[in-house]
Amino acid sequence: MNAILNETHDPALRSWVASANRDGTDFPIQNLPFGVFRRAGSGEALRIGVAIGDQIADLDGLVQAGVLDTLAPGTRAAIAGQTSLNALMALGRPAWSALRLALSQLLRAGADEMPAALVAQADAEYALPARIGDYTDFYTSIHHATAVGRLFRPDEPLLPNYKWVPIGYHGRASSIGVSGQQFRRPLGQTRAPGATAPSFGPCKRLDYELEVGIFIGAGNALGEPIAIGAAEQAVFGLCLLNDWSARDLQAWEYQPLGPFLAKNFASTISPWVVTLEALAPYRAAWQRNADDPQPLPYLDDASLRISGAFDITLEVAIQSAAMRSAGEPAARVSQSNFRDSYWTVSQLVAHHTVNGCNLQPGDLLGSGTQSGPDADQAGSLLELTAGGKQTIDVGGEARTFLEDGDCVVMRGWAEAEGRPRIGFGEVSGTVLPAAGGLALRA
Amino acid sequence: MNAILNETHDPALRSWVASANRDGTDFPIQNLPFGVFRRAGSGEALRIGVAIGDQIADLDGLVQAGVLDTLAPGTRAAIAGQTSLNALMALGRPAWSALRLALSQLLRAGADEMPAALVAQADAEYALPARIGDYTDFYTSIHHATAVGRLFRPDEPLLPNYKWVPIGYHGRASSIGVSGQQFRRPLGQTRAPGATAPSFGPCKRLDYELEVGIFIGAGNALGEPIAIGAAEQAVFGLCLLNDWSARDLQAWEYQPLGPFLAKNFASTISPWVVTLEALAPYRAAWQRNADDPQPLPYLDDASLRISGAFDITLEVAIQSAAMRSAGEPAARVSQSNFRDSYWTVSQLVAHHTVNGCNLQPGDLLGSGTQSGPDADQAGSLLELTAGGKQTIDVGGEARTFLEDGDCVVMRGWAEAEGRPRIGFGEVSGTVLPAAGGLALRA
Repeated sequence: MNAILNETHDPALRSWVASANRDGTDFPIQNLPFGVFRRAGSGEALRIGVAIGDQIADLDGLVQAGVLDTLAPGTRAAIAGQTSLNALMALGRPAWSALRLALSQLLRAGADEMPAALVAQADAEYALPARIGDYTDFYTSIHHATAVGRLFRPDEPLLPNYKWVPIGYHGRASSIGVSGQQFRRPLGQTRAPGATAPSFGPCKRLDYELEVGIFIGAGNALGEPIAIGAAEQAVFGLCLLNDWSARDLQAWEYQPLGPFLAKNFASTISPWVVTLEALAPYRAAWQRNADDPQPLPYLDDASLRISGAFDITLEVAIQSAAMRSAGEPAARVSQSNFRDSYWTVSQLVAHHTVNGCNLQPGDLLGSGTQSGPDADQAGSLLELTAGGKQTIDVGGEARTFLEDGDCVVMRGWAEAEGRPRIGFGEVSGTVLPAAGGLALRA
Repeated sequence: MNAILNETHDPALRSWVASANRDGTDFPIQNLPFGVFRRAGSGEALRIGVAIGDQIADLDGLVQAGVLDTLAPGTRAAIAGQTSLNALMALGRPAWSALRLALSQLLRAGADEMPAALVAQADAEYALPARIGDYTDFYTSIHHATAVGRLFRPDEPLLPNYKWVPIGYHGRASSIGVSGQQFRRPLGQTRAPGATAPSFGPCKRLDYELEVGIFIGAGNALGEPIAIGAAEQAVFGLCLLNDWSARDLQAWEYQPLGPFLAKNFASTISPWVVTLEALAPYRAAWQRNADDPQPLPYLDDASLRISGAFDITLEVAIQSAAMRSAGEPAARVSQSNFRDSYWTVSQLVAHHTVNGCNLQPGDLLGSGTQSGPDADQAGSLLELTAGGKQTIDVGGEARTFLEDGDCVVMRGWAEAEGRPRIGFGEVSGTVLPAAGGLALRA
């Protein structure tokens, strides 16, 4: 790490925001993730904030107060009065780094305290951190790809291209919502085994997918690929992503062009975007076994072999409607780690652009479902229940797939002995019953 | 047709713009397609225009001149000073219809002539007509699906879901350009037959796809499907779309999640969007054979069975670099008709939203490659050359797939005896050589 990173990551740093110094907080002063918020129900304009302990530092307020005047005017303009992170994302890594350092200096213990610039997270409501132009979902967990492949193709679980191509496909940007999203169980076509004709009705195999979201920063022009060595310069940060999936719709529709209505009814992301600089102490070697092929040169980079991955623990919990009524918290159903991904963030960016495809500030990449090597580390119910053949326990209730009223909560964090925890907060979303009208028509 | 449509489609209507009255023009006064333009090289702000003969009526200028004051203030605000059609698209069908009538009355013979409001198309440059939020590509030609399926699955060319599900997948919005787009031949992974490892380099099987683009107007909220009877109310209009494809990249990457880098390096659309009202005289029955299954109720509508399709002739022509140097025009390679599509525009909209997915103003749907029932009506080189096994003649040159310097020109029009032709103009795009640097690394 360079000098600035060393300074902002100093484990001894403490903040004048007391809650940022508590053990177990996701948001110590070493984190400083970005989001877009306003006071709940206030009707105020949305603005950019940074999470610190259980508070949010209002960046518009800090610019107005003149305490960010050491930053370039372009950086201040990309913060003040902005209702999304897109302008800041477009500035690129040096601007993000300068802003991180300035915020670290403003918020650390000993600096002038500015309580007026804080809003309690408990009083806030969030918007999507960015206007997402295009959303691409990848399939980077070899454990997930193998487990799902086994359900559909027992003789060939992992396809021949998997270890060469970071498999991805385009998703739907318009239906991405921020944590707290509620959506109706989707309606659609399914075909029962052995039936000749499909039937129409509510999805019966509704699932979540535990993913990491990757926000693109500066991007690239059409026709100008991003080389793998420069790929992380194009990434603003990471968030949590739940890519809801309708497994029964998917099985019937996905040949030959891939998932469509099975995926595009809703996807939910966390409000906070954790920068790659904040995650710098939590890098890990990329995952390859000795007998795995070496990546093609455009996907290979010596330094990334050593530190291309991120050591981020990921967790899924479910709270049923009954549990919510009883005041019981969501019950954990699995845990995995982003470190076990076969493809790294930089490989995704290099692959996505190698054909000239342009990425733009605010574009979102999904990592694909993050499942670990063990069966209980699966990032979807499809895997945890072996395709719905066995149930799992959710706070005393049996589940194969999601039921109406289920709230799925995902969390993520990086931690190590002697280092502050860098957390993502959480992303939650709730399943509402299917719409009635159209279902009755079929 | 209702009274307004009857008035704007009156075959006897003539314009004070002389070129709009010439036989064979794509843009008589009965058409009035919308686009976004400025004087080429002027650096002026982009603005909304309507094609009339070989001219463009500057709608911003018409609002400023006060001659559209009969329109609702909201409609004028959605035109004046706008650099895209999104705001106008969001207003919905009644506003579009009122604007069409007002423009028809302003531009018809006998009205006050306003030559100052015209810009010659020869002097204009175009931008994308709308900010495209999400792009979805369908697969509506059963002739294309069968022909392509035969190449990959001789024993089962058409999959069991085809006649039940309007197959679609999400595409890339960021790389969509307007007619005149030039793009580098994409680089990527391919695997030779029998090889164990892939190789990296320029695409060798570069193709076009002849499609109709469908621009969404008012759209729907998340969770609120658009019923098929209301689906056309959500459609602003149609354009031409060339969905460039890298067949060799696609063959290696597309399992199990569909096409990705094979498609997202470029897509090109025509500058003009022809409204559904302009196409009202050219409706046709939807295509079903007696032994085809009846659509599920959410995809069925009595009136659309009679008139759900559009009778639009589509054409592809190619001009090689040598032909261009010699001043030879593009040579026609095939012709098909949108009428032969298995699924209609309204079925695509109803299907896309039945699960609650939200469509937004400016979203683009692609029809998928439009191939007719005869082999020479194929809308791609993949089909015309039987997967590259035979060549076709292009102005004296042999082609299997596209070569560097090839310019592909697509045209579309609706015509019938005694009725003015409703044309789409054209969409053209040119293949540049692959980038050198990365190719050398592999």
